[in-house]
Amino acid sequence: MSEQPLDKKALKKQLAKLTEALLDAQFDLRKASKGPLLVLISGNDFAGKAEAIYAFYDALDNRFLSTRAFALPNSIERKMPRLWRYWRSLPPAGQLGFYLGSWYHQPLMQLSRGKISKAAFEREMQNIVRFEQALVDEGVTLVKLWLHLTPDSVKTRPPIDPELKQTVAMREWGDFSAADYEQVRESARLMSELTSTAQAPWTRVESHDARHRDLQIGQIVLLAMQQMLKPIGKAKASDWTSSNTAHLGKLDYQLQLDKPVYKQQLEHYQNLLRELIRHPAFSRRSLLLVFEGTDAAGKGGAIRRITQCLDPRYLRVHGTSAPTEEERSHPYLWRFWRRVPAPGSVVVFDRSYYGRVLVERVEGFVDDTGWQRAYQQINDFETQLVQAGTVVIKFWLSISEGEQLKRFEARDASPVKRYKLTDEDWRNRKQWPAYEQAVNDMVDLTSAPQAPWHLISAQDKRYARVETLKIVCETLRKALR
Amino acid sequence: MSEQPLDKKALKKQLAKLTEALLDAQFDLRKASKGPLLVLISGNDFAGKAEAIYAFYDALDNRFLSTRAFALPNSIERKMPRLWRYWRSLPPAGQLGFYLGSWYHQPLMQLSRGKISKAAFEREMQNIVRFEQALVDEGVTLVKLWLHLTPDSVKTRPPIDPELKQTVAMREWGDFSAADYEQVRESARLMSELTSTAQAPWTRVESHDARHRDLQIGQIVLLAMQQMLKPIGKAKASDWTSSNTAHLGKLDYQLQLDKPVYKQQLEHYQNLLRELIRHPAFSRRSLLLVFEGTDAAGKGGAIRRITQCLDPRYLRVHGTSAPTEEERSHPYLWRFWRRVPAPGSVVVFDRSYYGRVLVERVEGFVDDTGWQRAYQQINDFETQLVQAGTVVIKFWLSISEGEQLKRFEARDASPVKRYKLTDEDWRNRKQWPAYEQAVNDMVDLTSAPQAPWHLISAQDKRYARVETLKIVCETLRKALR
Repeated sequence: MSEQPLDKKALKKQLAKLTEALLDAQFDLRKASKGPLLVLISGNDFAGKAEAIYAFYDALDNRFLSTRAFALPNSIERKMPRLWRYWRSLPPAGQLGFYLGSWYHQPLMQLSRGKISKAAFEREMQNIVRFEQALVDEGVTLVKLWLHLTPDSVKTRPPIDPELKQTVAMREWGDFSAADYEQVRESARLMSELTSTAQAPWTRVESHDARHRDLQIGQIVLLAMQQMLKPIGKAKASDWTSSNTAHLGKLDYQLQLDKPVYKQQLEHYQNLLRELIRHPAFSRRSLLLVFEGTDAAGKGGAIRRITQCLDPRYLRVHGTSAPTEEERSHPYLWRFWRRVPAPGSVVVFDRSYYGRVLVERVEGFVDDTGWQRAYQQINDFETQLVQAGTVVIKFWLSISEGEQLKRFEARDASPVKRYKLTDEDWRNRKQWPAYEQAVNDMVDLTSAPQAPWHLISAQDKRYARVETLKIVCETLRKALR
Repeated sequence: MSEQPLDKKALKKQLAKLTEALLDAQFDLRKASKGPLLVLISGNDFAGKAEAIYAFYDALDNRFLSTRAFALPNSIERKMPRLWRYWRSLPPAGQLGFYLGSWYHQPLMQLSRGKISKAAFEREMQNIVRFEQALVDEGVTLVKLWLHLTPDSVKTRPPIDPELKQTVAMREWGDFSAADYEQVRESARLMSELTSTAQAPWTRVESHDARHRDLQIGQIVLLAMQQMLKPIGKAKASDWTSSNTAHLGKLDYQLQLDKPVYKQQLEHYQNLLRELIRHPAFSRRSLLLVFEGTDAAGKGGAIRRITQCLDPRYLRVHGTSAPTEEERSHPYLWRFWRRVPAPGSVVVFDRSYYGRVLVERVEGFVDDTGWQRAYQQINDFETQLVQAGTVVIKFWLSISEGEQLKRFEARDASPVKRYKLTDEDWRNRKQWPAYEQAVNDMVDLTSAPQAPWHLISAQDKRYARVETLKIVCETLRKALR
């Protein structure tokens, strides 16, 4: 970008034109419900990271702007996956969000201060690249700015307000020597190298002159907004090879328990689960149970046999249905990130984020690229949870087509169960082979060792209830050891 | 309620019938999107307050149940209005929410432990009665249960699990002697006396026998659910006397500033505001600015002259438009409670909760009782904020009919401003006298000394900008003294 100084009059004219264009773009973006646009502002101390945002508040409609500044994580945030707080704070479509101290800040400082190894930093940068890719895939646009000061220009900067002389980084990480600053520069170079992707590159902004800096940033943001408004061609679906493994075909539908054995085993495992959940170690862990399955396979009944053993105060059961207005204006996984369990608590998803690769895929609610990339997004989501201490257990409860028909007909007749049967259930039934393929693909692609699928024959309800309970107990026992 | 023991078989039969009826009622409630139903469970220690909830998780669809247990407020909650955390946690319509350690717990313990005076306790109970009234008015149903144990029955209770022997109250308030328990009983009697209203009475549940206790609670909850499902007659609007004071008529539309004076004063007050907001005392306070006004009066411009002085990191500007799906399934003020400023920060409402007594009243989006009781609800809301340290400043920016027409026409022509003009604006213009009456009523009914209205002539934009800025500075200066 050209660096020659503009005279005051020309600058003023350019700024006025820019303001008008930005305001137009903001309006159009909001109307089209595109975005959001996230502007990450990092850079050298005293380069004016916070000040750079002020100009936007001056020019644009403040109602559709937000600024997030993240300090060191608080006591709850420290126990959750590192990206959790960023996921939760995403602004909705149509908005412009500024991030100070974004997801880059902490690893950058940790590396600069020698608190983590270069290898750990590189892993973290890889996580971030995948996180940003997931955002971009879901319609978010990222502008990543590094506000640069040459050591020379620092000297020519006007004297800094003494009250502000301590930067956020200094308050959090202690004082910085000249060598420390060199370290930060060094780390930033590595960061930029590792995370300047085609979808979300870093842009360096020379910041020794405040007005010139703001003009540059304004132009970059305007360009990004105009880009967002362009119609996008339908993304080409990548080659897709469906699973050849008939996972469901391997189930033994003959498995069953007679009543006395069921009663005895149910009691046994329920007592065991009560004990495990009160284990002191569980207060630092958490449990996420995912229940998916054929309609009428008895998910609700199996879930209740588990929740009966849990303290309602530390339990949430979430049903997953069509997303709300607010949820639709955020990336797909946003609503599930908002519902992950806190330390010491249990969350049950009665249907879950796997809906994207099951019902949404089969019914065509999402295009092919959408469900095809969801497998990776889901794997990343679960990996982060597991790394933060959550025990993730996933069940597919399966019944045969014939058994389902019998149950649908019985439900129609029962007053306690009639509420469970909807027209949708009958419609889904016609898609049986498509669902079977979707399940096979899902099991193939999302069975990491730390979050495997358990396929359970639910032809006999008693067997399924005891089996799920048993798996929960065994997995928890291993995890708490 | 009858207390004779049921034989086991009869009890089982009754429970099965009750379960079926509860499940039906839950389904119907959800379909009709009635409620939510809040069940507050208080009572003697060891009466089984948490256990009483388990039965519902056994019987009902867990996806539409939630349980909240409130311990002592955390560091943020302590700085916010006491009821803030309860407002935020309200479940949506169609759901059943159980509350342990509800809004009664803390004052009850404080009184029992001699931490607050009886007079302070009584004031707190009055606040709660108004809070509950507001909830009930907005469609929430409240069931308040006191689980009672006679001193005798405590002796005959089965021995308690040693791990659970320390109750929540004990962990938070220290050990309890027999005399302490008598104190709690005494305080509870006073609480019940002060807060058993027609809409939300306390019900005592004998709890020495767990099964009998659960059966009673199930029946009470069922009754409440069935009551909710009955069609409600249209509430009679109370007598309504409109304001006779022509507040807007008193405005002097001649007030204006010429450009040099404007520039000088703007700079002066902007610098003053920057200083005030950095005052150390402000870190424990917060600022809520409400901007209402005639369409095209220049709210946005006045707001920007203020936000220019503020740090975007501690600022949120919220526009208020039609509520979302999720917001509609909660009491009206819920969405504003979610947006009140945290300590050290500023929230600006560009249009606000006053919408209920302005546009919603004039356009008939709410029935007469709805907007008529909103004045009291809003006063209570603001009073709680002020008591917790928020500075509340409210502006009505006013222009004449002729001036509005001129501005609408100018907007149509300007590329930067065209986005501001909608069909709705032209429609609202036809309702001029109705809006004027609504404003006069609003000013009459919501001008408490700690949160007064400032009516500003905005005929001259410069005058209005400086005047609002000046009032913000003066009010803040007084508050921080």
